[in-house]
Amino acid sequence: MPVPLVAPPRFGANYTPSRGWFHHWLDFNPSEVKEDLGKLAELGLDHLRVFALWTLFQPNRTLIRQSALDDLAKMVEIAGDLGLDVSVDGLQGHLSSFDFVPSWAATWHEANLITDPRVIEGQSSYLRAIAERLKSHPNFLGTSIGNEFSQFTWSAHPTRSVATVDQAEEWMRTMIEASAEGAPDAEHHHSEFDASFFDSAHPFTPELAANIGARTTIHSWVFNNTAQTYGGMSEQAFLLPVYLMELGRAYAKDPHRQIWLQEIGAPSPHVSAADAPEFMRRTLDYALDTQDLYGVTWWCSHDVDRALADFPDLEYSLGLLANNNEIKAQGAVFKEFAERRQQLTTPAPRETALILELEDERQGLGRETCKPGGKFFDAWMELAMRGERPTVVLASQAENAGYLAARGITATQSMHHLKTPQNGATVAHA
Amino acid sequence: MPVPLVAPPRFGANYTPSRGWFHHWLDFNPSEVKEDLGKLAELGLDHLRVFALWTLFQPNRTLIRQSALDDLAKMVEIAGDLGLDVSVDGLQGHLSSFDFVPSWAATWHEANLITDPRVIEGQSSYLRAIAERLKSHPNFLGTSIGNEFSQFTWSAHPTRSVATVDQAEEWMRTMIEASAEGAPDAEHHHSEFDASFFDSAHPFTPELAANIGARTTIHSWVFNNTAQTYGGMSEQAFLLPVYLMELGRAYAKDPHRQIWLQEIGAPSPHVSAADAPEFMRRTLDYALDTQDLYGVTWWCSHDVDRALADFPDLEYSLGLLANNNEIKAQGAVFKEFAERRQQLTTPAPRETALILELEDERQGLGRETCKPGGKFFDAWMELAMRGERPTVVLASQAENAGYLAARGITATQSMHHLKTPQNGATVAHA
Repeated sequence: MPVPLVAPPRFGANYTPSRGWFHHWLDFNPSEVKEDLGKLAELGLDHLRVFALWTLFQPNRTLIRQSALDDLAKMVEIAGDLGLDVSVDGLQGHLSSFDFVPSWAATWHEANLITDPRVIEGQSSYLRAIAERLKSHPNFLGTSIGNEFSQFTWSAHPTRSVATVDQAEEWMRTMIEASAEGAPDAEHHHSEFDASFFDSAHPFTPELAANIGARTTIHSWVFNNTAQTYGGMSEQAFLLPVYLMELGRAYAKDPHRQIWLQEIGAPSPHVSAADAPEFMRRTLDYALDTQDLYGVTWWCSHDVDRALADFPDLEYSLGLLANNNEIKAQGAVFKEFAERRQQLTTPAPRETALILELEDERQGLGRETCKPGGKFFDAWMELAMRGERPTVVLASQAENAGYLAARGITATQSMHHLKTPQNGATVAHA
Repeated sequence: MPVPLVAPPRFGANYTPSRGWFHHWLDFNPSEVKEDLGKLAELGLDHLRVFALWTLFQPNRTLIRQSALDDLAKMVEIAGDLGLDVSVDGLQGHLSSFDFVPSWAATWHEANLITDPRVIEGQSSYLRAIAERLKSHPNFLGTSIGNEFSQFTWSAHPTRSVATVDQAEEWMRTMIEASAEGAPDAEHHHSEFDASFFDSAHPFTPELAANIGARTTIHSWVFNNTAQTYGGMSEQAFLLPVYLMELGRAYAKDPHRQIWLQEIGAPSPHVSAADAPEFMRRTLDYALDTQDLYGVTWWCSHDVDRALADFPDLEYSLGLLANNNEIKAQGAVFKEFAERRQQLTTPAPRETALILELEDERQGLGRETCKPGGKFFDAWMELAMRGERPTVVLASQAENAGYLAARGITATQSMHHLKTPQNGATVAHA
């Protein structure tokens, strides 16, 4: 029989300020923030993920602006008054196609953002200062290092910071540690974009994503070739977040490590405005059928103001709320989900695991099979579409009975053969 | 007999705020600005050159922050109350080794800063807005496009914006025009670093420098290889600004176009703190012996706070004032010069002109001969050190009697032979 959840998943939004987008930090206005957050509280949300702009908070390496930290604290306070908890991303870094790298780490002062000791010292000081400033706020959840900071190491980045997996790990641990020095009792995270799961050259590997920080965070965007390959309203698109979460789960040494679906959105033109509510329903129905789900944080709170130029077109219509703070259709659907969270029951374990075979699990070599259009992706999706509720297990764990039991896995299947320990049946698979 | 000057040269400073350097715009404090500017007024200055930070004033292409313009206007107003006129540089752009390029023109949005229509539209809107906001202030002199913005086209720049001479000209004219649309009665300038005079590959040619905008601006820095080659306290170092001004004069179609020595400083370690006052005396004595000199604007007002990291070491000690607003020895000397300006008389014309032969005057091909260590540089310096008060004439004008007469030139000398039209005497020259 259904087991009531001890803690239902949290429902929240990534806060994109309605006036001035993240440039609002330059003209911080508590009244405007209060208006935005008040409307979000009406949606039944319990938390927000908010974003400092690195260039404004730390314009010189040794100048972490007290007034910026005060504004951030004020935002957390306003949220608290409305019953909203807050997680704070520090190193932006990267947001919606725009990079914000301070001049002390760019052009003439350019240094590797992951490996340069001077930069690391600056980043650590900054994250420590944010955590220290906010630790006394009861609704402060903790920090995330920064939004998809790993994109600066991406092979396609215009000023790529090359790093090895070991260097990426060292950097992540240093950043989490700095945050913990500032706020020892808070929960600190990091986040990557999905190259982490799909690109063998990406040094921020799934292993790091799934074992460092308080939880594994997942950012799920169908414009990652899922929509282009299968359609924005395909089953694969609806299944993408749960697929990424099960993939992340496979890499975690802790079989019950929590997973935070930290970004999920309905991006046009892959998902039309008319389809967005249905996309959300289908996507969240699948996503909530996942164990150890900490919460879902929609991207984003507010549509970007059309008066601001140069955003990729999709960024203007991702909000739960319109830029004028009116609730959009997808906002109303998200409210339904948020209000129903007390009725949710604990999902049953996913008993069937597809075995992921990589050339090197530490380095994540061979990850491409997992990307949309990859063989592993397709095999997993086929199982899911047959209704088998698949999860994922790494090849190195596929014979580890204790581990499988801890995860509730009763059947493992290779890309080629289904093996059901109970009955020994096999099913050929392309 | 000495002719009293109709308008004595102006004395001013490039304003580098004592608290937070140019990051002070993030925490604009009129009281601090008033304290800084009050101390500068005590030095007898009559004007300031001030600097907006592009990234903060225009964080999105279509978001030119009204509050930033208001802060700038407040600064101009404070200066006016102290009897200081103000020229405003808009596109920073580049300051003291730090680049500030807004995210809408960097990395994923990177575009050529000189030729991209989207960027040009944004830059124009911004300069127009600054001029429009300030035009009603009686002490507003006008705008400069930006501090040495041409360095973004320099071959050594980490993210070089390649441009042709024609493109550079088009861009400069567009920027000046935008400024003039905002403040039709003000005087608008542009500035380049000395690659303009020395580097054949630099598209911001001397011809453009000397014919566009209200005046020719000169930035004179002995760390440009003058100090390294001849010594920081050499005659060549003292003569550098007047050399650059005479060089600039040669390219001007208007024989009496004014010249603004917009940046001159005493940089360590090339000039020691102990030598700085003498460096200033010797340099200014030479510089003031120049016709049509609009003014001298020292770089800079205040030493950079040592608490701010990552500046080139010389930037911490360039001020007329210490970071705590105390008058430094070089500040006291500058005050003497400023206070004596009513006693200055019009310099006599420089009657001897060294002929500059270039492969192509429009393109500035062959400019390297003018750089410190170059043959033309050495020949001019030798004449100057003999006491001949040389100027410069382009080869294309060397036989133009009307032009020579307008400039008061009575003798021209090639790099090889002195020709004195009056007596026909020639002097061999290495």
